[in-house]
Amino acid sequence: MDTPARPPLNFDPLDPVALTQALIRCPSVTPHEGGALALLDHVLSAHGYVVERPVFSAPGTADVENLYARIGTQAPLFVIAGHTDVVPVGDTAAWTRDPFGGALEEGMVHGRGACDMKGGLSAMVAAVLRFRRENPDAPGSIAFLVTGDEEGPAVNGTVKLLDWAHGRGERFDHCLLGEPTNPATMSDMIKIGRRGSLTGRLTVNGKQGHVGYPHLADNPIRGMVRLLAALDATPLDAGTQHFDPSNLEVTTLDVGNPATNVVPAQAKAVFNIRFNDVWTPETLAAEIERRLREAAGNAVRYEISFEPTNAVAFLTQPGPFVAMVADAVEVETGQRPALSTTGGTSDARFIKSYCPVVEYGPVGKTMHQVNESVAVADLLALERITHRLLTAYFAVQHET
Amino acid sequence: MDTPARPPLNFDPLDPVALTQALIRCPSVTPHEGGALALLDHVLSAHGYVVERPVFSAPGTADVENLYARIGTQAPLFVIAGHTDVVPVGDTAAWTRDPFGGALEEGMVHGRGACDMKGGLSAMVAAVLRFRRENPDAPGSIAFLVTGDEEGPAVNGTVKLLDWAHGRGERFDHCLLGEPTNPATMSDMIKIGRRGSLTGRLTVNGKQGHVGYPHLADNPIRGMVRLLAALDATPLDAGTQHFDPSNLEVTTLDVGNPATNVVPAQAKAVFNIRFNDVWTPETLAAEIERRLREAAGNAVRYEISFEPTNAVAFLTQPGPFVAMVADAVEVETGQRPALSTTGGTSDARFIKSYCPVVEYGPVGKTMHQVNESVAVADLLALERITHRLLTAYFAVQHET
Ligand SMILES: [Zn+2]
Ligand SMILES: [Zn+2]
Repeated sequence: MDTPARPPLNFDPLDPVALTQALIRCPSVTPHEGGALALLDHVLSAHGYVVERPVFSAPGTADVENLYARIGTQAPLFVIAGHTDVVPVGDTAAWTRDPFGGALEEGMVHGRGACDMKGGLSAMVAAVLRFRRENPDAPGSIAFLVTGDEEGPAVNGTVKLLDWAHGRGERFDHCLLGEPTNPATMSDMIKIGRRGSLTGRLTVNGKQGHVGYPHLADNPIRGMVRLLAALDATPLDAGTQHFDPSNLEVTTLDVGNPATNVVPAQAKAVFNIRFNDVWTPETLAAEIERRLREAAGNAVRYEISFEPTNAVAFLTQPGPFVAMVADAVEVETGQRPALSTTGGTSDARFIKSYCPVVEYGPVGKTMHQVNESVAVADLLALERITHRLLTAYFAVQHET
Repeated sequence: MDTPARPPLNFDPLDPVALTQALIRCPSVTPHEGGALALLDHVLSAHGYVVERPVFSAPGTADVENLYARIGTQAPLFVIAGHTDVVPVGDTAAWTRDPFGGALEEGMVHGRGACDMKGGLSAMVAAVLRFRRENPDAPGSIAFLVTGDEEGPAVNGTVKLLDWAHGRGERFDHCLLGEPTNPATMSDMIKIGRRGSLTGRLTVNGKQGHVGYPHLADNPIRGMVRLLAALDATPLDAGTQHFDPSNLEVTTLDVGNPATNVVPAQAKAVFNIRFNDVWTPETLAAEIERRLREAAGNAVRYEISFEPTNAVAFLTQPGPFVAMVADAVEVETGQRPALSTTGGTSDARFIKSYCPVVEYGPVGKTMHQVNESVAVADLLALERITHRLLTAYFAVQHET
């Protein structure tokens, strides 16, 4: 590809703090690129990476730009994955600093995306640049797989970027995803899997009428209460070796009837289940349908539908690769991190179809909140941990 | 009062069909008088009634005009109560005839208010005019107590009109309210009481969070389902001699959370109880509070409030007056009507504090619906029944 002449950078990209600040200053709220991918392109191109920036489209969603950069041509290919898009600022007035200012104050870098995940990505880029400078002849290859559509619909992002790369013959061996995995300190938690997510929409149909003539009406709220009580009556499972029990939460329940003398015609509920490796979306939907059928009998008329989901439960089995990440964290922080599968979903659920993937990154306490920030000390620790991991990784022979 | 000169009526007010048509042509959707009370004023004034049209006001509600008309000065004072206001037309396009046209077709009078309750009021006015013409020296007095605020907030209507009349020394002995009481035929049903109505608002407070971290959240929908199930678990009572069992219907249940990955902070429900003479609003509210307290334990944080209500349960004990109404219906229709306390509330709940009140009127099948109508035959039957009742009433001595 053509590489236009660019002005020199006014900061050192091997400094994870400076790189985080520079990325925060790019207002890359999904689906806007905001200059963030251009900045990474600039940095990586200058260091000899082959950089591609494919744009993906789909009807009904905004076009989204992505970035794929690789250095080296041999296996193994180690991939660092991430995203540069950020969630909206939210209540601007509640921020004490410019959300796109990247201020460095009181040992913290401040701004939207500081911990989710411009900080993690920056620390990893800085570590890779330092590792390759120190080991120009290291075997194997390193790639960056960076999307601008993680916080949005996630349609024109990692899913398509993986497929695009695979189509070009890219074969990933292992992946590190720099999402903020740590609840409180950098030694807390590596994520080795994620629960799946299944959303169901339940409608109970009754018959509208006047509250004064209940025998002529059929109140759907009565049926809805019965069905929801049944869904909640028995645990879905007891959890597995690496997973918490699957859990169902009703997220909304709406009738919208303003008239206190009218029995409504319909009640609607939405629920979401975070499920472990006991279930597939299909077996779980079947179990929910069985419970509803049993509770409804002939008394409740209902409809259930499930949203299509690509969020299956997955686990990267603890083994040499997971141990290598945990070792690097332990050496740098003095404590061995937990191997966890808790929390929401992430793009790791897509990556796991291509290679083993582990997630590790900054303390996520302020992610998606006002006054998001990341500690300078954590950025430096993450840079060292990533460097240590790369050193260990490229020192051994790998099997996938 | 001054009575301005008026043009002669172009119909015979002793014809209940013509009077119903004329009233329907007055677009008296609450709170608009629409010419309906002026028309009654015109008719009654011309027949020697003393007519007053007090306007009542309250902050936050529209001013509403009412009508009180009396003929005679002696006891007993028999009152015919009603309203000329009507509910809105609703889906205009669904009407097959002008809702304010009063068309007479296929043996029916058509239009908004035909059965609720311009038809019933017209038949009773026509019957009274005929009765007084035939019996100019009948003992006692007859009054019309007509409001323009029955279908609306009912704040500037019958309640104030009763108080106003009482303040002027009016002492009612018995009342007939011409609401549509018959489900299918004119021999079906007299209402001798009404259940009370109590509306409660229940809020369950939880803690918002991410569905992926349920231990950090507290889903209020779980608590709401538990409380509502408890309210519904045991019947409130088994009914009484003249009343159905009290009945609770949850009328709405709302969370309004659009995010399928967020556990909401709060759930709100509204319920309405139609209760019989086992309860007062106070004892019933206490029972509901007891059930909620028991079901909630320490696990559910909730708030309950009850709307102020003037809808207590009441019964006009079956006795000579009720029998007199039932007799008149039976003689004219060939069947004895049931004595019922079913259905919604009506202004009878206010009148019962002043005198015994019985409700009887047209077939109400189409009330509040599109294509509301009333049968000519039913208007004529109601005129005859009212006439027969007046004849019997003023033929005997009364005790209240
Ligand atoms: Zn993220
Ligand atoms: Zn009415």
